[in-house]
Amino acid sequence: MDNNPLNDLFDALSNEMQSVDELINNRMFSEHAPLIQNLTNHLINAGGKRLRPLLTLAAANICNYRAKYHIHLAAIVEFIHTATLLHDDVIDESLKRRGRPTANRLWDNKSSVLVGDFLFARAFQLMVETESLKVLDSLSNASAEISESEVLQMSLSQNLSTSKDQYMQVIRGKTAILFASACEVGGLIAEAKNEHVEALRLYGEALGISFQIVDDFLDYTGNKSNLGKNIGDDFREKKITLPIIYSLQKKNNTNYLFWKRTLEKGHQKIEDFEIAQKVLIDDGSLDKTRLDAIYWSNIAKSQLKFLPESQFNKLLVKLTDYVVARVS
Amino acid sequence: MDNNPLNDLFDALSNEMQSVDELINNRMFSEHAPLIQNLTNHLINAGGKRLRPLLTLAAANICNYRAKYHIHLAAIVEFIHTATLLHDDVIDESLKRRGRPTANRLWDNKSSVLVGDFLFARAFQLMVETESLKVLDSLSNASAEISESEVLQMSLSQNLSTSKDQYMQVIRGKTAILFASACEVGGLIAEAKNEHVEALRLYGEALGISFQIVDDFLDYTGNKSNLGKNIGDDFREKKITLPIIYSLQKKNNTNYLFWKRTLEKGHQKIEDFEIAQKVLIDDGSLDKTRLDAIYWSNIAKSQLKFLPESQFNKLLVKLTDYVVARVS
Repeated sequence: MDNNPLNDLFDALSNEMQSVDELINNRMFSEHAPLIQNLTNHLINAGGKRLRPLLTLAAANICNYRAKYHIHLAAIVEFIHTATLLHDDVIDESLKRRGRPTANRLWDNKSSVLVGDFLFARAFQLMVETESLKVLDSLSNASAEISESEVLQMSLSQNLSTSKDQYMQVIRGKTAILFASACEVGGLIAEAKNEHVEALRLYGEALGISFQIVDDFLDYTGNKSNLGKNIGDDFREKKITLPIIYSLQKKNNTNYLFWKRTLEKGHQKIEDFEIAQKVLIDDGSLDKTRLDAIYWSNIAKSQLKFLPESQFNKLLVKLTDYVVARVS
Repeated sequence: MDNNPLNDLFDALSNEMQSVDELINNRMFSEHAPLIQNLTNHLINAGGKRLRPLLTLAAANICNYRAKYHIHLAAIVEFIHTATLLHDDVIDESLKRRGRPTANRLWDNKSSVLVGDFLFARAFQLMVETESLKVLDSLSNASAEISESEVLQMSLSQNLSTSKDQYMQVIRGKTAILFASACEVGGLIAEAKNEHVEALRLYGEALGISFQIVDDFLDYTGNKSNLGKNIGDDFREKKITLPIIYSLQKKNNTNYLFWKRTLEKGHQKIEDFEIAQKVLIDDGSLDKTRLDAIYWSNIAKSQLKFLPESQFNKLLVKLTDYVVARVS
């Protein structure tokens, strides 16, 4: 057995994941604009973890779904996720000038926007094919909330008075809601009982919150391999993430002035990221952040108890542990 | 009576248009991200012509629709149109550097992308509320084709071998398909006969083609007042539009070298736009373009004959004439 539960999930769902990949490859093609496939091909097949499609397939299987539209749903959530990444990748000149690395950028802004739009639209076409208004409702609401939260995040950038509530609002919207919808639609397409659909939604939401907190933790500690992200990106982009909020709560004056200069005013020197890391370790903010991630992973696991037992249910328990294992 | 048939249409539909405006204002609000309304408010209430919503309302009325979801549909097409404008407004540094005016830009790239995404998602939420899968099918297909055509247009930029067929493919997708869908969904929501829905779709498509050809004509002659567009924009962005294609077909060597330098290589001097205008007038390319616009407006009008007679049908005939009146 492999120690990575993502691989266990992949093995348990390998036939279905192959169908998902075929559908993705099939639908990211554009008859009118062959250029699109060159771009999407590179992006979608470039080692993404396919975590969200796996959640959808697992959810449908937990609810004993026996037809084929969960394949559509899995492709849809991957398309939406990829579109979001592409649009998140669009940056402004001002940001570029202030030190964001440009060398590794694969796309220019215009391509990122248009290909992202194409993937969003493809996702909606696939949703219509399922003929399920409940699915359309869940995923269109998720899409709206994703963009709202990205705007909220943008407006809170460099704002040292960002509260933990506001941070939670941002990560619920930009990350957790798509995890939640990915799980929920697996139950909806299976016409599962309301309480099972609700448990799947809450499981996905809590897992997504945990996942994002881990991500924000690792931005100050880890070796990030997420598409287009490097350790220190949040700091360089002056994002007020949970470790920073906890550090500010300590009201240490020296540290406050450091965050004010580097994040609020954006005056960063080359050695500042290492100082930031040291501050967050020394004042306990990273530890507190880690505990929050574990708290939310436990909430996620508690929801799985409301769902029918099966190999997929067990794998989701392990997957949830795996998400937070990255911070321990 | 006013000479502008758009005003006649507005008068005939004033109550319904007021409901559309209320719905638009209501739904462009974001509870989580109040910033969004500041941005959308400015954009959507900034003197847009509301041409597409008018088409939807007129189509529904021609088909004797008596319920209220055509209001939703009209708001949806305006949201999609506005989102498209916002995303079209995202430009690359390279373009900026090569002379595109930046002073009047109201949005930075990131806001344009995220607020556009929000409006797209809102449009899909409104579609789901109509509970009509046929409507969802029409508008999700239109959305996909819009982005495909924008990519195609981008890939043909600066390409002097662009054919008229390719140009038509671009404008069908980037402009005409939303006109077509705006009209078609008015018939679909009314559960009109198939031949009426088809006539509405073909009317909208031909009107949209005519509209875009007029737009491309005016880019070399008129006083443009479209959002974010100025006369000469196409030339500065090295777009190969219909007047250019006709000029290249003449195989005049002096003119060919001029287009090669200014559009293919992109080496433009300050006086080049005036030279371009003169070339297109002198070699008859603008006249040929004008005739194409009129040809498509006649195709549009011919489709209206398949639809029940009514005051709205007559107003659409006048509207179609009005679109091409801008070039005569």
